Amino acid sequence: MKKTRIEALGEFGLIRHLTENIKTQNESTVYGIGDDAAIIDYDNKESLVSTDLLMEGIHFNLVYTPLKHLGYKSIIVNLSDIYAMNGKPEQVVVSIAISSKFTVEAIEELYEGMKEACREHQVDMVGGDTTSSLTGLVISITAIGSVEKGKAIKRNSAKETDLICVSGDLGGAYLGLQILEREKAIYMKDPEIQPKLTNYEYVLQRQLKPVARRDIVSLLKEHEVTPSAMIDVSDGLSSEILHISNQSNLGCRIYQEKIPIRYEARLCAEEIHLDPIIAAMNGGEDYELLFTVPVTQHEKLVAIPGVSIIGHMTHAESGHYLVPENGEDVKIEAQGWNPIKG
Amino acid sequence: MKKTRIEALGEFGLIRHLTENIKTQNESTVYGIGDDAAIIDYDNKESLVSTDLLMEGIHFNLVYTPLKHLGYKSIIVNLSDIYAMNGKPEQVVVSIAISSKFTVEAIEELYEGMKEACREHQVDMVGGDTTSSLTGLVISITAIGSVEKGKAIKRNSAKETDLICVSGDLGGAYLGLQILEREKAIYMKDPEIQPKLTNYEYVLQRQLKPVARRDIVSLLKEHEVTPSAMIDVSDGLSSEILHISNQSNLGCRIYQEKIPIRYEARLCAEEIHLDPIIAAMNGGEDYELLFTVPVTQHEKLVAIPGVSIIGHMTHAESGHYLVPENGEDVKIEAQGWNPIKG
Repeated sequence: MKKTRIEALGEFGLIRHLTENIKTQNESTVYGIGDDAAIIDYDNKESLVSTDLLMEGIHFNLVYTPLKHLGYKSIIVNLSDIYAMNGKPEQVVVSIAISSKFTVEAIEELYEGMKEACREHQVDMVGGDTTSSLTGLVISITAIGSVEKGKAIKRNSAKETDLICVSGDLGGAYLGLQILEREKAIYMKDPEIQPKLTNYEYVLQRQLKPVARRDIVSLLKEHEVTPSAMIDVSDGLSSEILHISNQSNLGCRIYQEKIPIRYEARLCAEEIHLDPIIAAMNGGEDYELLFTVPVTQHEKLVAIPGVSIIGHMTHAESGHYLVPENGEDVKIEAQGWNPIKG
Repeated sequence: MKKTRIEALGEFGLIRHLTENIKTQNESTVYGIGDDAAIIDYDNKESLVSTDLLMEGIHFNLVYTPLKHLGYKSIIVNLSDIYAMNGKPEQVVVSIAISSKFTVEAIEELYEGMKEACREHQVDMVGGDTTSSLTGLVISITAIGSVEKGKAIKRNSAKETDLICVSGDLGGAYLGLQILEREKAIYMKDPEIQPKLTNYEYVLQRQLKPVARRDIVSLLKEHEVTPSAMIDVSDGLSSEILHISNQSNLGCRIYQEKIPIRYEARLCAEEIHLDPIIAAMNGGEDYELLFTVPVTQHEKLVAIPGVSIIGHMTHAESGHYLVPENGEDVKIEAQGWNPIKG
């Protein structure tokens, strides 16, 4: 038997490879694999389903992640997927696998965070599975939401010349992670030294307690702005804009100086000698919404607070570029996911 | 902080503990935690959601489980939950976490089995997540199904004097596992010895390629038999009848000689010196349907092929008993799940 190493395909390659010949069979299945959530039709409404699997040591490190924050974040990242479809999350099912090192109180903390996120977003936890793990903690969450029929916003429907927009600011979550990793390394060498986390509140909060942008979905509606395509920023701006571009068969140009980066994030980036643009493009976990809007809606769009126009879609042949203020355009490339990087 | 060991609560105790104060908030949430699947209302139909998390070393052993069978079974166990609600499974989302030891071809095998199960049951795979694992393989599946409004059959609605029925036969899957474990132990000692698996086809198939009883759901409908409560046998008859009894606030009596056990399973049990009743009561993984039926429907019930009447529900005060042909009644107790036994 042929033996192809998984790294040869990468995450998206692997998913594509495994799912390319899947045909849907049910009338109620409006849209299957390939977006933030699947779409299921129930007469007047459509249902959205999204799932995430979080592994200890890959997606979180319990050395510096309080369990309550972890629970909160694990729900938020799923709700974010439903918002990214223009939907309203309504239910979650939560499965966890735990090893004997956890106490009941520890798992309670985890659930407290989950419940807090559910309360904030008026989401019902309706089921799940609890089982044992020989090693680390595993959290698997499926979120279900609803959207008015035909109103789901996918990734594959951007149009040439559409404006590229992003909510909030980018790069903070990744910078927060760098601070946590730095302090962990210091702590590992000498547990007597107290972690130095003041002055980093903003980036730490971005990493540990992200926000799912329900407000943006509401604001877009209020201002009668209808994005042509939308996705949430979980893997970094590069990866997400490539999803929209590739699935819409288009190119894109993103203007570097337009990428919203907070002052606190710039300061932190400077301190740890990291280009904040790198953090924004390749960091991920900001859970902002990235969307494209027809240029005809420009006037209504600029009236929405907290949204930046960062570029526009182009012909597929024009490629995918980050445009710096000075110097040559930089080709945008997906940051490969690597199952062995651990 | 108080430190309660998880074993002190057990699986069901832990779930109850973690979820007891969860209140649902959405009109569309008809029924949340506490059954095989949640129920979500969409005008004329209700939607069912069920999820399972399968961990390497806990739920499956790759030494003797072919990946294709594993994929098949991982889907089937979820569809079984939807059937156990009297529903029709329509969609699944599949998440896997894999380590670098797997090749693309290995994961293809896994997906082949999943797709085969989906094809057989006309179910659409509509999404998922693929990520890395530092250790073993993790499979998380959420199944979504539909049921006519108000027709979902829960666990908490059995009535006193209802007949207790089970489809097919029990204990086979557990006996199959014992054979696989035995041959693995022999192989570990001397890899030269070929595993001896002939004569065990029936029990091995029960373990490796279980059947989700869609046919029973159809037969019940055809014969106009309406179960008052239903559950699938994933953890063993003891555990499942206690779920129905406790959630319905009733007692039960199960007659030992009525428990359906196949000839092949009896032979195998005898050979490995195991009481086949123990396999049926505590083994699990048979994925048969256990349901209660009002005694007034007895005549219609007996016309359904492949269903055994094994006992009846009683007053809560009468307790939960297994009644042998000779000798004293045996109290039915749940087989505790133990997160550290793994």
